Amino acid sequence: MKKKVTFADIAAETGFSKTTISRYFNHPDTLTTENLKIIEDTVKKLGYRENKLARVLANGKSEIIGVIVPTLYMHYYADLLSHILSAGDAYGYKFLVFCSDENREKEKGYLKELLAYNIEGLLVVSHVTPSQELAKLGIPVVTIEREDKYVNSVNTNNYQGGIDATTLLTEKKCEVLIHINADLKKCSPAYGRIRGFREVSETSGTPYCEYLRKFGNDYQEIRRVLEPVFQDIEEKYAGRKKGIFISNDTVANVFLNMVITKYKMLPEEYYIIGFDDSPISREAVIPFSTIRQDTTALAYSAMDILVKLMNERKKRVPVITKTLEHRVIDTKTIIRGTTK
Amino acid sequence: MKKKVTFADIAAETGFSKTTISRYFNHPDTLTTENLKIIEDTVKKLGYRENKLARVLANGKSEIIGVIVPTLYMHYYADLLSHILSAGDAYGYKFLVFCSDENREKEKGYLKELLAYNIEGLLVVSHVTPSQELAKLGIPVVTIEREDKYVNSVNTNNYQGGIDATTLLTEKKCEVLIHINADLKKCSPAYGRIRGFREVSETSGTPYCEYLRKFGNDYQEIRRVLEPVFQDIEEKYAGRKKGIFISNDTVANVFLNMVITKYKMLPEEYYIIGFDDSPISREAVIPFSTIRQDTTALAYSAMDILVKLMNERKKRVPVITKTLEHRVIDTKTIIRGTTK
Repeated sequence: MKKKVTFADIAAETGFSKTTISRYFNHPDTLTTENLKIIEDTVKKLGYRENKLARVLANGKSEIIGVIVPTLYMHYYADLLSHILSAGDAYGYKFLVFCSDENREKEKGYLKELLAYNIEGLLVVSHVTPSQELAKLGIPVVTIEREDKYVNSVNTNNYQGGIDATTLLTEKKCEVLIHINADLKKCSPAYGRIRGFREVSETSGTPYCEYLRKFGNDYQEIRRVLEPVFQDIEEKYAGRKKGIFISNDTVANVFLNMVITKYKMLPEEYYIIGFDDSPISREAVIPFSTIRQDTTALAYSAMDILVKLMNERKKRVPVITKTLEHRVIDTKTIIRGTTK
Repeated sequence: MKKKVTFADIAAETGFSKTTISRYFNHPDTLTTENLKIIEDTVKKLGYRENKLARVLANGKSEIIGVIVPTLYMHYYADLLSHILSAGDAYGYKFLVFCSDENREKEKGYLKELLAYNIEGLLVVSHVTPSQELAKLGIPVVTIEREDKYVNSVNTNNYQGGIDATTLLTEKKCEVLIHINADLKKCSPAYGRIRGFREVSETSGTPYCEYLRKFGNDYQEIRRVLEPVFQDIEEKYAGRKKGIFISNDTVANVFLNMVITKYKMLPEEYYIIGFDDSPISREAVIPFSTIRQDTTALAYSAMDILVKLMNERKKRVPVITKTLEHRVIDTKTIIRGTTK
């Protein structure tokens, strides 16, 4: 193995002092363009490797952000993580990534690990640690689409999405409005979808009903829970024009497949709209209508808030504000073959 | 903000020396269970936060592994990353994760960053940096399902998967065997699928043909490329029993949807099998047969090799072997509704 190249080696090679070499790495703006170039070439030639960790200890800036996602199995979370990584890249941050599987004890361990690595900030997409606990960590925290009472957050405009999906179904003159969703807590941002559905249903005077069930993440499980729901809808509302708003695209796809398997086509009395604009909504046997969550904007807004908070802490006299920021990202209605 | 708790504080509180407190963190096995308990309680009570970075500088063990994935949009990579994270968890490692978008310049920057953070090892799933360059990084590297001539690797048994998929189609007495795949380089492990297909086709004496195309990652793009392939198959092999082996489930699903859209059902003359066992293979309008890639085993084997290499480096006199390890993970044939 080669001997490690030091500032002293670069100084000897270039003829500059070690202080100048240090300035090259920490305050390059204080050097002339020519001298920058000379040192840069030598750094490359000698194969010097910057030791960021030593710098972190010196100035406390690890340039590392912790991210906790609940799972990467669901496309929504994988997509969100992918946008978070590229958003951080734009700001020069690196990410220590953990997958909690919604296990609170596991997550507790991860949070401890992350703090031990002097992370500058934390993005939490996982749901299991209450925001009150996250607020006590002593570092900037931003959550995305989860309970956020005590921390900064970015959420989808779920309420507007619920309004838009249901309004589309009333415009199609559906005779009964049906909402299929998880049995959400009221503090969950996604509960806004249920509120939006109820409000439009009430206002329009159209009969409506809700199937709020615990679905799980697995295809077989979703199918098992959805089968009796489909049966019930078929029996109760036979012959009536049904407008069905399903809270996520994975479940909407399973429902659509049940309809297609039974009728070999989408009967005119079925109007279906999902939520998320996941790839499955485009890849389904009939690409279906959905409410698009803007995962790019969710990720970039979260990074924007986090970077602001992290930068403030680096100031000589940081002003730690107690006011929380909760940003809301608009949805977009995507019309495809199931609401025509 | 609270004053930072130090070893001195823990020593003062427990009555032990600072050396004993240091031993608690670095060589806990040298303390009695009682003393461990006393110190542990005090550490918790005072709210001491371990500074891992300081330890890294002292002993060079960052406990951080770098991971570079090409994208998280494709379920296969998200799934693989998820298993890598849990495999690392089992060994006590943390992951700095980067998404290269298959951009070589970007990846170059990431590799530099990772080295600056004293990562102990590197897992590369991305395809753009040749293994010859990866081998020069001076740290243990393991790749998964990509060109691996100069580095350790874990790959799927693509050749056996190709054999199994094609054999299944010949057993169904298909009159023509068709393979749809990307136009792969021979050094890519996935090229084994093409070899397997050709070998069984030749041996069985069944007429066969290949459609090797550049598909892209996007649904519309896949559809655009696949449409003329479907037309061609319909024209050339009308009325003949067709066995179609499609190299990934995303493309297989698009193909299946084209067939179903045209015929409102799966005609008896179509036999279709995909590759990967992605969720889409179960969630399709007709859940389809596929060759399962064992992403769990791929991730755990890669970690197993990497941990062995990283541990060797921590020894007082490490033996750096020049012999590379290339592990191969078996596939499994999953029979569903499209090969019955």
